Amino acid sequence: MSLAHGYAAQDAHSPLVPFAFERRSPGPNDIRVEILYSGICHSDLHQSRDDWGGALFPMVPGHEIVGRVAEVGADVKKFKVGDIAGIGCMVDSCRHCDNCKADLEQYCFEGATWTYNAKERGGERLTFGGYSDHIVVDERFAVKISPKLDLKAVAPLLCAGITTYSPLRHWQVGPGQKVGVIGLGGLGHMGVKFAKAMGAHVVMITTTPEKGADAKRLGADEVLVSRDADAMGAHAGSFDFLLNTIPVGHDVNPYAALLKRDATMVLVGALTELEPPLRGVNLMFGRKRISGSAIGGMAETQEMMDFCAEHGIVSDIETIAIQDVNQAYERMLKNDVRYRFVIDMATLERAPA
Amino acid sequence: MSLAHGYAAQDAHSPLVPFAFERRSPGPNDIRVEILYSGICHSDLHQSRDDWGGALFPMVPGHEIVGRVAEVGADVKKFKVGDIAGIGCMVDSCRHCDNCKADLEQYCFEGATWTYNAKERGGERLTFGGYSDHIVVDERFAVKISPKLDLKAVAPLLCAGITTYSPLRHWQVGPGQKVGVIGLGGLGHMGVKFAKAMGAHVVMITTTPEKGADAKRLGADEVLVSRDADAMGAHAGSFDFLLNTIPVGHDVNPYAALLKRDATMVLVGALTELEPPLRGVNLMFGRKRISGSAIGGMAETQEMMDFCAEHGIVSDIETIAIQDVNQAYERMLKNDVRYRFVIDMATLERAPA
Repeated sequence: MSLAHGYAAQDAHSPLVPFAFERRSPGPNDIRVEILYSGICHSDLHQSRDDWGGALFPMVPGHEIVGRVAEVGADVKKFKVGDIAGIGCMVDSCRHCDNCKADLEQYCFEGATWTYNAKERGGERLTFGGYSDHIVVDERFAVKISPKLDLKAVAPLLCAGITTYSPLRHWQVGPGQKVGVIGLGGLGHMGVKFAKAMGAHVVMITTTPEKGADAKRLGADEVLVSRDADAMGAHAGSFDFLLNTIPVGHDVNPYAALLKRDATMVLVGALTELEPPLRGVNLMFGRKRISGSAIGGMAETQEMMDFCAEHGIVSDIETIAIQDVNQAYERMLKNDVRYRFVIDMATLERAPA
Repeated sequence: MSLAHGYAAQDAHSPLVPFAFERRSPGPNDIRVEILYSGICHSDLHQSRDDWGGALFPMVPGHEIVGRVAEVGADVKKFKVGDIAGIGCMVDSCRHCDNCKADLEQYCFEGATWTYNAKERGGERLTFGGYSDHIVVDERFAVKISPKLDLKAVAPLLCAGITTYSPLRHWQVGPGQKVGVIGLGGLGHMGVKFAKAMGAHVVMITTTPEKGADAKRLGADEVLVSRDADAMGAHAGSFDFLLNTIPVGHDVNPYAALLKRDATMVLVGALTELEPPLRGVNLMFGRKRISGSAIGGMAETQEMMDFCAEHGIVSDIETIAIQDVNQAYERMLKNDVRYRFVIDMATLERAPA
């Protein structure tokens, strides 16, 4: 065991406060990572406030973790001390089901072990996330990161990045395709960058005309304002693929109308009820498809990280001190971030043990 | 012009009554078909009662038409007098859009011309359907039917048949796959027959345990009662494909749970709102897909008809006289039909002109 320091929610109604806790000692396949940067995901806020139910407290959020390897177990092959490592939403899975064998641990039949707000595999100890000074994790659930990248801006790739990269890759987005990214936030801004780097003609679809200029700076070829019925009509039936990053339940019918025959819209943000409801006829005429996608497997997360190194892709971020995390949550609720907060963990003061 | 006789709804609130009207004389690409049998589709009832709005009266329903070719235009290539022909839901389309060129006239960008409750292409004359003694149609929108088949039981293939055959083919259902057919009615009973003939392991999914024995007679290998939560749980994540024939909006979430990773559920019946709403998370974990499909193109309708001749597949029907059509509608509303009514058009008395 080693003593760790971080920030935790003690219950659903209080701000995050300094918190000391224990991490396991590295086993033979584990690495110990000194955390440099920890991205703030919208889901950190939802979970720490128990918006989705079932929250486990105390909770140390954070699943966009970049750090330096400080210790490696005897059987570790992928990392050596001093390497830069990334840890995302998962720290374990069953490893033997069909999905785990297919390198899709996020769809583990028995359920992946999430980086925080979960219990360690086969035990009762809580997992604690990246708002902390170090973490111990099986090397299978860490990826290698090129030290050439701006490491603080790499952190959000571990969740916002892979969540958008994976469906774009799976549905084979590429040159000659017209691809829409719906919603310009933490996920959407990464979707634009990736779709553009993959060679597609990228249309940013947003409710907010003011975001247009920024969307083009990020790489969008066009901006489509979804509240403009004429513009939506002009784009009807023209998209090869839609990446829908809207983080709440919403009316997907107008977006379905944008799809070509046999084309797919993938939901990556909206976990809850799609209201007003989807109308069957809007899928039938044109054999349109709606699907969803959750983060990505570890092999694909490594592939994404290598793609980012090759193409010089990172997130647009605003760095904060850990002491400002509660204020950052409030700003996120107002969409006042372009496009992701990242905590500089060097700002962490050690809490009393 | 030629005088035709049939049964029509004169408005949304009255029963169907005898009706005389004019058909166009066959043009060079047209065939004139003496109608032998006309299937009754659920949508006939909805349209004649204007349940979906926009109904055009007088309305002669019927888009599951089997008859004998009585006359052929000068340029007709596919048919000769005496052949058996089938006409389904469409009688025309733009013929130059991408979907028409891809033999998917049902998804015509400009809208296909429906067999009834529509206007003739480029004109103001109403189209009139199969509850009548003859029809004139471009040969492109008629299919050849093997005279070896039981012709009265062939009629429903033109709508219920192709509606289920097309998605099963498009999503490449075949041996080694576990395929669920949801809902045992006019569409569902054809779905079971086709999926079985294509070599799949077929599971009939129904709310009604009493339908189990009949489902097995039709070819189902298993029956899953959707109201049995334990049974649904036992089948979770196990289906390669789901053909959802439920004809009204419903909760698709329990069915999404049945899909394997990357597997698809296709809606062919539910045109309206899917309520309670679909939850995004139910697609995300497993990258599951929901799509829809409408009838099939003319080339595929011919392919289906040939498949039926090869495999001896027809619908399970109950033949009625045209004078009983209003009573048949009432029985349909009570699901009192196994599984499709077909009108024997020989029962038609000529109405006064």
